[in-house]
Parts: sequence; structure tokens; C-alpha cells
Amino acid sequence: MPNTFGHLFRVTTWGESHGPAVGVVIDGCPPRLPLAAADIQGDLDRRRPGQSDLVTPRQEADQVEIMAGLFEGRTTGVPLSLLVRNSDQRPGAYDEMREKFRPSHADYTYQAKYGLRDHRGGGRSSARETVGRVAAGAIARKILALAGGVEVRAFVTRVHDLAVPAAALVDFPTLAEVEASPVRCPHPATAAAMIRRIKEVRAAGDSVGGIIQCRVRGVPPGLGEPVFDRLEADLARAMLSLPATKGFEIGSGFAGTLLKGSEHNDAFAPREGGGVRTVTNRSGGVQGGISNGEEIVFNVAFKPTATIMQRQQTVDLHGAATELAARGRHDPCVLPRAVVIVEAMAALVLVDHWMRQRAQCGTFDF
Amino acid sequence: MPNTFGHLFRVTTWGESHGPAVGVVIDGCPPRLPLAAADIQGDLDRRRPGQSDLVTPRQEADQVEIMAGLFEGRTTGVPLSLLVRNSDQRPGAYDEMREKFRPSHADYTYQAKYGLRDHRGGGRSSARETVGRVAAGAIARKILALAGGVEVRAFVTRVHDLAVPAAALVDFPTLAEVEASPVRCPHPATAAAMIRRIKEVRAAGDSVGGIIQCRVRGVPPGLGEPVFDRLEADLARAMLSLPATKGFEIGSGFAGTLLKGSEHNDAFAPREGGGVRTVTNRSGGVQGGISNGEEIVFNVAFKPTATIMQRQQTVDLHGAATELAARGRHDPCVLPRAVVIVEAMAALVLVDHWMRQRAQCGTFDF
Amino acid sequence: MPNTFGHLFRVTTWGESHGPAVGVVIDGCPPRLPLAAADIQGDLDRRRPGQSDLVTPRQEADQVEIMAGLFEGRTTGVPLSLLVRNSDQRPGAYDEMREKFRPSHADYTYQAKYGLRDHRGGGRSSARETVGRVAAGAIARKILALAGGVEVRAFVTRVHDLAVPAAALVDFPTLAEVEASPVRCPHPATAAAMIRRIKEVRAAGDSVGGIIQCRVRGVPPGLGEPVFDRLEADLARAMLSLPATKGFEIGSGFAGTLLKGSEHNDAFAPREGGGVRTVTNRSGGVQGGISNGEEIVFNVAFKPTATIMQRQQTVDLHGAATELAARGRHDPCVLPRAVVIVEAMAALVLVDHWMRQRAQCGTFDF
Amino acid sequence: MPNTFGHLFRVTTWGESHGPAVGVVIDGCPPRLPLAAADIQGDLDRRRPGQSDLVTPRQEADQVEIMAGLFEGRTTGVPLSLLVRNSDQRPGAYDEMREKFRPSHADYTYQAKYGLRDHRGGGRSSARETVGRVAAGAIARKILALAGGVEVRAFVTRVHDLAVPAAALVDFPTLAEVEASPVRCPHPATAAAMIRRIKEVRAAGDSVGGIIQCRVRGVPPGLGEPVFDRLEADLARAMLSLPATKGFEIGSGFAGTLLKGSEHNDAFAPREGGGVRTVTNRSGGVQGGISNGEEIVFNVAFKPTATIMQRQQTVDLHGAATELAARGRHDPCVLPRAVVIVEAMAALVLVDHWMRQRAQCGTFDF
Repeated sequence: MPNTFGHLFRVTTWGESHGPAVGVVIDGCPPRLPLAAADIQGDLDRRRPGQSDLVTPRQEADQVEIMAGLFEGRTTGVPLSLLVRNSDQRPGAYDEMREKFRPSHADYTYQAKYGLRDHRGGGRSSARETVGRVAAGAIARKILALAGGVEVRAFVTRVHDLAVPAAALVDFPTLAEVEASPVRCPHPATAAAMIRRIKEVRAAGDSVGGIIQCRVRGVPPGLGEPVFDRLEADLARAMLSLPATKGFEIGSGFAGTLLKGSEHNDAFAPREGGGVRTVTNRSGGVQGGISNGEEIVFNVAFKPTATIMQRQQTVDLHGAATELAARGRHDPCVLPRAVVIVEAMAALVLVDHWMRQRAQCGTFDF
Repeated sequence: MPNTFGHLFRVTTWGESHGPAVGVVIDGCPPRLPLAAADIQGDLDRRRPGQSDLVTPRQEADQVEIMAGLFEGRTTGVPLSLLVRNSDQRPGAYDEMREKFRPSHADYTYQAKYGLRDHRGGGRSSARETVGRVAAGAIARKILALAGGVEVRAFVTRVHDLAVPAAALVDFPTLAEVEASPVRCPHPATAAAMIRRIKEVRAAGDSVGGIIQCRVRGVPPGLGEPVFDRLEADLARAMLSLPATKGFEIGSGFAGTLLKGSEHNDAFAPREGGGVRTVTNRSGGVQGGISNGEEIVFNVAFKPTATIMQRQQTVDLHGAATELAARGRHDPCVLPRAVVIVEAMAALVLVDHWMRQRAQCGTFDF
Repeated sequence: MPNTFGHLFRVTTWGESHGPAVGVVIDGCPPRLPLAAADIQGDLDRRRPGQSDLVTPRQEADQVEIMAGLFEGRTTGVPLSLLVRNSDQRPGAYDEMREKFRPSHADYTYQAKYGLRDHRGGGRSSARETVGRVAAGAIARKILALAGGVEVRAFVTRVHDLAVPAAALVDFPTLAEVEASPVRCPHPATAAAMIRRIKEVRAAGDSVGGIIQCRVRGVPPGLGEPVFDRLEADLARAMLSLPATKGFEIGSGFAGTLLKGSEHNDAFAPREGGGVRTVTNRSGGVQGGISNGEEIVFNVAFKPTATIMQRQQTVDLHGAATELAARGRHDPCVLPRAVVIVEAMAALVLVDHWMRQRAQCGTFDF
Repeated sequence: MPNTFGHLFRVTTWGESHGPAVGVVIDGCPPRLPLAAADIQGDLDRRRPGQSDLVTPRQEADQVEIMAGLFEGRTTGVPLSLLVRNSDQRPGAYDEMREKFRPSHADYTYQAKYGLRDHRGGGRSSARETVGRVAAGAIARKILALAGGVEVRAFVTRVHDLAVPAAALVDFPTLAEVEASPVRCPHPATAAAMIRRIKEVRAAGDSVGGIIQCRVRGVPPGLGEPVFDRLEADLARAMLSLPATKGFEIGSGFAGTLLKGSEHNDAFAPREGGGVRTVTNRSGGVQGGISNGEEIVFNVAFKPTATIMQRQQTVDLHGAATELAARGRHDPCVLPRAVVIVEAMAALVLVDHWMRQRAQCGTFDF
């Protein structure tokens, strides 16, 4: 289970940072979905290293190969198998990590858990693993789009202490607005400041974190399962399963705890054209674990990248104190590349819950 | 799956607010564990309604009955079945909810999902469901304690805008310190202010939320599974599966995004007596999804209780605008009773991951 | 997982032979199903001890109590919790088993696995556990009937060496034909011989086994999942999970291995009214793991009851050779009571696969 | 789930008969296992087409490539990803199958389930899928061997009506005895007759089936889980998930139903050197779903190959009656190549249950 996500739309990723390839198997994909490599490549390109001067210069074309599951341009209902080859490997660059644990990385915990580890570029703990998630997420997003125009949009709202003004976060951003800047913040002035900050930090051999917001519109009411598989619980798990994440909040989130119930409750009102809407959306599109048809809105906190170009105090495999030298390639800020990964995980959660909802509530009619 | 939690230590809860009983089945419990109803009752009493004048006056003795799985005072490895009868039911008190959706409750979403709902006291969406979680959690906590002195301690750190000073949160609180006040905040001055605030809010027919912190000490390195079943991902899911939760953060959390990497990284140092420790704990006891032996520290945000004693705008089953009258019993602040529920869920996550770790890394020795 | 069956229609049984009750929790039941205790009681009565002079005289009314999941006569989509109290317990009757392992029972293996066991009446390994399966199966059968007239019919085709003539097995038996004799064999002459044989064997303190055939008609094409969750694979697992079963075969089964391919293949022909049928049914209603719309036909082998009224050589808890005295209550032949259990398990498999089929192939339409 | 097998040692296969490759991802493999491609290749060679003149002449080298999960010759605890390229593809040879359903194949049911199918060589329903099972099984067998000398040995005991004499089936056959003949029957005289029969049948454009027996020795007591995940239930499912299987029996099986309880029960006796043994083994090594330390013995029935070189009556995609011409490559008898597949599936079941047993009963010590 550890490398599989989802119950009905099941995604299993495999591969290490410096192995021959990384990949993903998707089991349970609905049949007859029109699909081509190009549907997946667009999202991989948004995750790709070397795409701008804000991110790691590792050179990877990240071309997806579809090994199974397609026939004459459509999914057949059997497993899709996708892989992306690793090309720009510099395993020698990691010789120091063989013996020394990098602070705030997974080196020590993998060693403690498994009794050995592939130290090259973090091995399996590398964010390179997310290639498979993004590839699967691209398929999930296509399903959601075809299913009824569901759109998943993530974007950077804060880098370090530079935040988009709350007043600028009202509308659902377009993809073009998000992609307009390499930092993937849809507010141009803030984006410009973020870019400057990231470059300054990189120049200093340091790193920064921040916050990504994700919104989903078009989700019908009824997705999500009481009591443990609430939609927000699965979204939280999905986000906290991403490297470098430290927090998740939905709707009013942590700030909502400062309101009273009379200020926080979302009054119901009739929806034009039938149905029910909420006048406000402090619930974030989910009530009692189930979507209510409003926009799903959540935030994810990313810590500053653990890899920095500064000497650090650490311990070696034998338990002796030592220092780690400063070198290697890294992202001074993971958020620009993480936007599409957040979207992918959100889409995977939604497709899976959609299928679960239909299975229980749409199979038999009494 | 929706009502089951865990992979190897599997907990399935059942029951509605106004049915004859609520219960839980625990499958996978290790055999030979000494267990009696008294081991469970203590935690149920901490969750029980009517335990203080800060919480709902609903009268429930919440006496646990063990229906299966014990033999001569020990678990046998087969399912434990526990139930707690509902006694203080006032189904008539909920007649208005049959037709009207309570704002920020699960009424509308259950109706949308299932096409019908048990409206009495929220039915399955009632926090009464957590009786089963607490009962199972008590068993998990006993296992953790016997396994090696692992302690799980949750406590209230903020109610509305009243927060324990950060400087007072250094030491691991004792159970006695937490239980010293009915609000379960271990800082006496803040606890006193919180109690006043909750009483004021209740008098005004309103409600408040806040933050619960949970710490776990004694966890060995190696628990947690890359890449999707990270320990923090499963903790996040566990917490967001609780009623009224809106956010989760581990270690440095959202605030940590304001630091640079050079400020945020946890340097490693040799641990006295062997092994490795971190000098700081911004990681919150987890690195790369796996416990590192430090204290696990996380926060959970609870929104203000949705039930308030004020008239509210809503919609009825037929989609027409209407008003909901103010009445019923409720908790003006769920946090005091939620403390033991947070502990229960954390313990369930840890026992499950402990078993998973042993299964993969401790079954065969090469 | 060990005590849970199914992926989407999930059944978890609990309880021991001499505990206070046995029960079952059903998670994932479709909402809005009309349901009452009477829908379940009929099947429990067919499994009940003491129902005829062919079966154990243990007296159990086996009245089902619905503890959760129903509201105003319909399922609500949340877990159903059912229990049946144990009344005729004679734990003292089992004192000898505390120290001695009964041959061909689970006494030794439970002790070896768990390091302790509830020896009273076999504890969890008792066929009393199947009460929960039958209760859940009754609900599954109601769903199948309402879904489209699917009928599941099991019946005894052989006891010891007394078999129904093959020529008499052509038509789908009616429930009345099966229930016409207490041995549940629809062929009156064979049934009469079987009854005589069972009585003779019981008089000699011995036991017999035999074969149950199960047929299902009305199943639409498309149920079953390649490659591991084939319909026949899940049926095989379901049947081999029943106490006393030693074999399973579908369609032509073991005898089919004596045919050549040219004799064995089921030719296809157009079905009147549209669609496809097979001219013969050696496939048993399943091809490539997926139902083809023909009758599903399989056989299950049950060994002779392990409990016999004769002295037997065995070993005690301390590894010493000893003898087991002959006493207790038992079924000289389990097949008459097992018929409804086989039906229950078949129905559980089918409902689960129906939901899975719809989830993948019926949720999204491209 | 459909393409994944196992709970803790999880195997997911992917790939079609005429896609670029077939493969398998193994999640949960214990770390530190010494492993090289050569450990896997031996079993793949036993499954390979073209290995003798009894099997299909399709030419596939079936060289395994390890894409992930190994580091310096040992498993690391992360997913293993293995693939085998397809080379001898003749998709044009299958043009007739695009429109016509082959009798007793999965063509019609895949079409009915998914609304489309990859008709080339059966697509996903081809036995080529078992490449992944055999590769994973080779790893499982290595684990079992290193864990304590557990040996899994399958062999052909009947082809058509040619059976090994019962008296010749007493000893556990050596691998050399099984591999001594291309038909993999360890009884030389019977093997010779089987080979003649297969060649006769092939010459006539026909096919035959038969029975494979599998034995496992060295399994410790305690593996298997009540009540649904019994060891024999999981073995049954594993075997019925293989293409062309129609039946499974363990221990005394179907023939055991002809005995009385007094004849069938396995008396217990002290085991030399401590512990308990059974005097006979009609239980087949499993009691109450749990291994008892005796040899595990089961039989699997394989139908005659559905592909035959004779004209057959069938139906086309449009529901019209038609004929299928006789051509293509095929195995006149699948049993010789299925031996290693049966071993693989048995090994997968055992490793998984071993890990489950340790997780529940070996993680905590009370």
C-alpha cells in the first residue's frame, strides 16, 4: 500500500532519483477515455526541472512513454503503465551523502527504517518520484474535465513572507494567469517580488518556502465518504504525502478558529436554477466530509527546501558528528514546480471519490 | 472502507446519534494483550457529554460493553466488538431538522449524497460516532504504553483568540496538568480565561473554536511509509476525519514557511547513549514521512461549533428559503471533549504503522 | 482484513461460539434499500441449529437485531450493524478441550498462531461465525433480486457417496424443491437416501461430507475483474473461506480436464432478442474472469464433520500424547445447514463485483 | 485492486500480449534481500514460450530488466519495478479476432464489460500477463528459501486421462525430477505417455488439459488468517485467478467427501524434537485456515486450451453468427508452462501471509 494511492482509481509510483527511470501504474482507469502522450506531457513540462531560472538546472526531458493500457487511442480498462527515463544522473555528485545524513532530509530515517538506503539524490525520497503522480494526475484531470467541466487550479499565494493580498484572491484564476510568471503566482506584482526574493535567496545559498492554494470548481454535491474517508481528510493526506509539506487547511482553516459560530456558519440559500448554495464558503466546499457543490478551497504549507549551499552540522552512518559540505543542484524554492503536483493529487482524490460515490449510490436503484 | 480506519490494526465504527447504540469492531489487534472494560472506560469518560458545565448536558453514561474478542482477560487475536448504548435520546427534539438543513452541518450533503438521511441529531454525522474511535484508541494507547512507554498527549492551546504563551509549551505536559481544568489546557491562567470565554459565548447562544496540540514521545525511528502513507499524511487524514476540523500542521507548520532553509533545517547530532538526535525539532518528529525518534508534534484547528442558539437562514428539503429556529443541546466549544479523540486517532495511526514497519522490515532477516 | 470480506460491499463479522453474541457490520450498502429484520430472519432460520433432526440440537433462536444503518425502513448508506445473541451456551461442556487439541479442528493452529485460544466450542473458529455471513448475505440477495431478478440457489447434490443423478440436474431448482426435504437436496429419491445415511452415521457416532452445487441466474455480462479478482477466483476464495470446505470447481471443473478442447469449448450463438449466448456452458458462466450472462454454476466440497462421537488420538497443550473422549453436540453432516451459507457468500461476491463494475465502467461516459 | 495481488507483499502486473512490454511492480518487499536478474530469469525461462516442442513456438527471450528498487545488489524496501519486452509480435495474425469472438476465450466478456478491447492475442487476457507473476514469484520463492528452507514444488500429475499412479506421489519431488521431462511430470513413464498424447493432440489441431499438484514443505505453523483470509481460501483465489483453471482442492479435496469423519480426521501425535504433528495429512497442511506445519498439498484443474486449429461456430461484434477459421500459434497443453506459474502464486500467498502473521502476532510482546 505505501506506494499506492486511491481505492478505485489506483496509482502506484515507482523509481528512484538515479535509477534508470521513474514510472507509474494506474489501475482502475475507466475504459474508452481518449488519451495520448500529449495529454500527459503538458503537465510533466510544468513539473520539469530546468524549465526556468528559478528551479534546479538538472536537465531532464521527462518524455512520457505509454507502455500498456491504450488501444487505438483509448484506454481499455486495464492498467496503464507509464514511464519516464532519468537521463541527467550524476551519481558521483552524491558520494558524500553515502556516509552523511543531510539535515531535514529523509536520509537518516530511511537508514533507520530499512537498514540501508540508496543515497544517490535521495533515492526514493527524492521529489523525482512525483513524476508518476503528475502523469497520473494529468489523466485524472482529463477525466474530470470531460466528466463535467471540473477544473483544478493551484497557484502560489505566498513565498517566504510575500503574500498575494487577500482581496486579490476572489476570482478563480485562469491557467494563463497562473502560468504568466515562472513562479506561478497569478498576482503580477507579488509574483515579481517573489521572483526577486527567490533569486536573492539562491544567491545566498539559502532557500525559502511558502503556501500554495488550490481551488476546484464544478464538483457536484455528494463526493466524499463519512466517516474516515472524508473528502478533506483524503485531500489532507494527499497533500501531506508530498515532499516538503508541513500543513493543510481547508476553507476558513486555522484563521477560522478566530471566528464565532454565528460569524463562521455558511447560511444556505436557494441556488438559481434549482438546488442549494451557501452564501459564504467558510466550509471550503465540504460539509461533513462531503462536497456541497461550492468551490473546494484549500491551502498547503511548504517548508524551505532542505538542500542549501551552506555547511551544516550532521552525523555520519557511524553516529559520529561531522559537517556536510555545501554543493549540488537544488531548487531554492519548490513551490513553482509543486503547483502542478498539488493539482495532480487533488485530481486523483476527486476521481477516486467520484467513482466511489457512483459505486455505492449509483449502482442500484431502489 | 469509509467507516474503517487502518490497514493492520483496523477499526470500523458504526451507529447513529439516536439509534440504539454506537460501537466499534477492531480487527487485527495483537493477541495476549491484557484488557478489561476499565482500560477503555477512562477515555470514554473524558469524551462523555455532561462531564462539566462547559459541554453539552446530554446525559449518557457511555458504559462500554465488550461483546467479543476477549478470553480470560486477554485479547485472542480475533475481532474485538465493543458497544455503548444510547440512552438520552430526544428524537422529537429534532423534528425541525427533518425538513431543514442546519447551516455548516452535514444535513444537506448527506441528503445530496444518499437521497435520504437520518436527521435525528445528525444521524451518522454526529460526533457521537467518535465513541467508537475513543474506545479503540484506548486500546491502541495501552498497546503503545506497554510496547515501550510511548505516550500520546493532546491538550488545548487556543480557544478563540486566547492562546497559551509559546514559552509555556516547552515541556511535555503531564496528564494531570491537562486534566486539571475542564477545558484541558495545561496552562492554568490561560485555562481560566478560556473557561470564562466559553461561558460568555454559551450565554450569548454562540460558539467558539480553537487549536489542539498533540505530542507523542517514545516513538522509535522508522515508523511511516514512503511515499503516500507518510506518517504525517496519515496523521493529517486522521485529524481531518474528525468533525469540525479545518486544518493540520506538523512541526514548524504554517509558521515555518516564514523561515529560510538555513534557519529551518534541524541539524543532526550524536544522541547520548548512541543513535542520532536532532538539535531542533522543526521537522516535528518526522522526516521523509518516517519518524526520527524525536517528539511528534502537531496542531489541529477546530472551527466554532456549527450548532448555535440563534435563528439562521437556510433552505428546506424542497429548496425553499426558510429559517431555522434556535434550540437544542450543544457544546459551545468542542475542544475540551475533542482532546481525547485526537489522542485516540494519533494512537490508532501509530499502532498501525508500528505493525506495518515490523511486517516489512522485521519479518525476514537476510 | 482477516475478518472483512468485499471491497465495496464490505462485511465484517465478529463473535465467538460462546461469547455473548455474534454479529456483522456491513459498510458500503447502497442507500434507500427497503429492509426489515424479517428480510434477514428467513435465511438465519435456514442456518439455525435445531431446525431438524439431522442437525445439532443446540438451541438458538438466532433472532437478528438491527443496531444501526436503518431509518424508517430504508438503508441510509451508513454501516448496518446486526447482532444475534448466543443463548444455549454450555461452556463447561468444553473443559476437556482447554487442554486437548481436537483432531482436524482449528484448536492446534489457533494455539500455534496466537499463543492462546478461546477453547469453548471452537471460539472464533466455530461455524457459529457464519451467522454474520448469512445475515449479510440475505441483504445482498435482496439487492440482487431487486436489481434485476438475480437468483442464487444452492442445494446438496451429494452426501457421502449418494449423488443426484446428473440427468436430474438440468433445470434451475426452485426454492420449494430445495426446501422440500431437510437435507436440502431437490431430488426426492436421493434426498430420502441421504437422510437415511445421515441418521445411520449419527447413530454410529460418525459423520459424512458431500457436495453442494450453487447456481446463479440473471447475472448480466461484465461482472468480474481481470486479472486477480476474477469472478471465479473470488467465488473460490469465498467458498474455501467456509469451515469444512476442501474444494471448489466451476463449470466443467475437474471432470472437464478429461475433454479435448474441441469437445470443451462453448460455441457462441446469437441470443434471441439480441446479444450473445453460448450453446453449452462448460465455462460455468464466466470467461476470462468475467460473467458472460450464462448461468453461473459451481460445486463446493465439504469434508465430513470433524467432531465425532468416538475416542480419538491427540496431543495436549504440553505436547503429550493423549486421548479425546467422545461427547458434545454436533452436526453429523454440515451440508443441509451450509446451503444458505454458500448462497450468502455467492451473493456477497456478486453484489461487490456489480458495484465495482459500475464504478469503473459506469461512472464516466466518454 | 483488480491487477494487484497481496496485502503486504503487493504485486501489480501490467501489459498486454502485443504491447511493447509486460511488467510488474512489487511493493512491500522486505529490504536487504540479495537479488539479481539471474534470480528471476531462471523461473522466467521455465515459463518461456518456445522452450520445447510441446509448447507454442512464439519466440520471446523474456529477459527481465530491473528498473527500480535495487541498490548495490540488495532490495531497499521501496518498489521493485521489473519489465520484459515483447518482441515476437504478429498483430496482423489477429485481424480476424477484431470482429469475431473466440469461443471459451475472454473476447466477448471483455467487450461486454469495457465496450472495447485490444483483440491482439487476447490483449490483457493473454497468459502473457503471467510473466509478471512469475517474476514476482521468483522473488517470493527466494525469500521463502532464505527464511527457512521453505520449498514450493509444482508438477503435472495428469494430462487428459493420463495420471501418475497414486502410489508414485508419496515423496516430495526434487526440482531435477520435475524438470527431467519437458512435460514437468516427475514420473518418467507417465511423462513419456503425456508427451506422446500432447503431440498427437497437436497434430490433430486439438488440445488437452489436466491437473497440476503443488506441495510446499517447511512452512511453520500459524500462517493464514481467520475467517475470510484462510490460507486455503487465498490459495484457491490465487489458482482460480490463473488463465484456464477450473478447480482447486486442498488435502483430501473432492475425494475426501467419500470418507466418514472417523476415516478422515488427522490424529495428532507428538513431533520428534518437540511440537505437534498429524499422523495423516488429509487436512493438506491447513486447519481452520491456518498452516499446521505439515506439507501443504493442493491440486489445480486446467481446462484444455481454448485455442484450437479447427473451425468453430461463433458470433461477431454485431451479434451475427459466423465461423472462426483455424490458425495461429498455441500451446496444445498449457500445463508444462503453468507449473512455474502455480509455484509463483503459491509463493506470493505464503510470503504475504508470513508478513501478516508477524505483523499481528510478532510486533508487540505482552
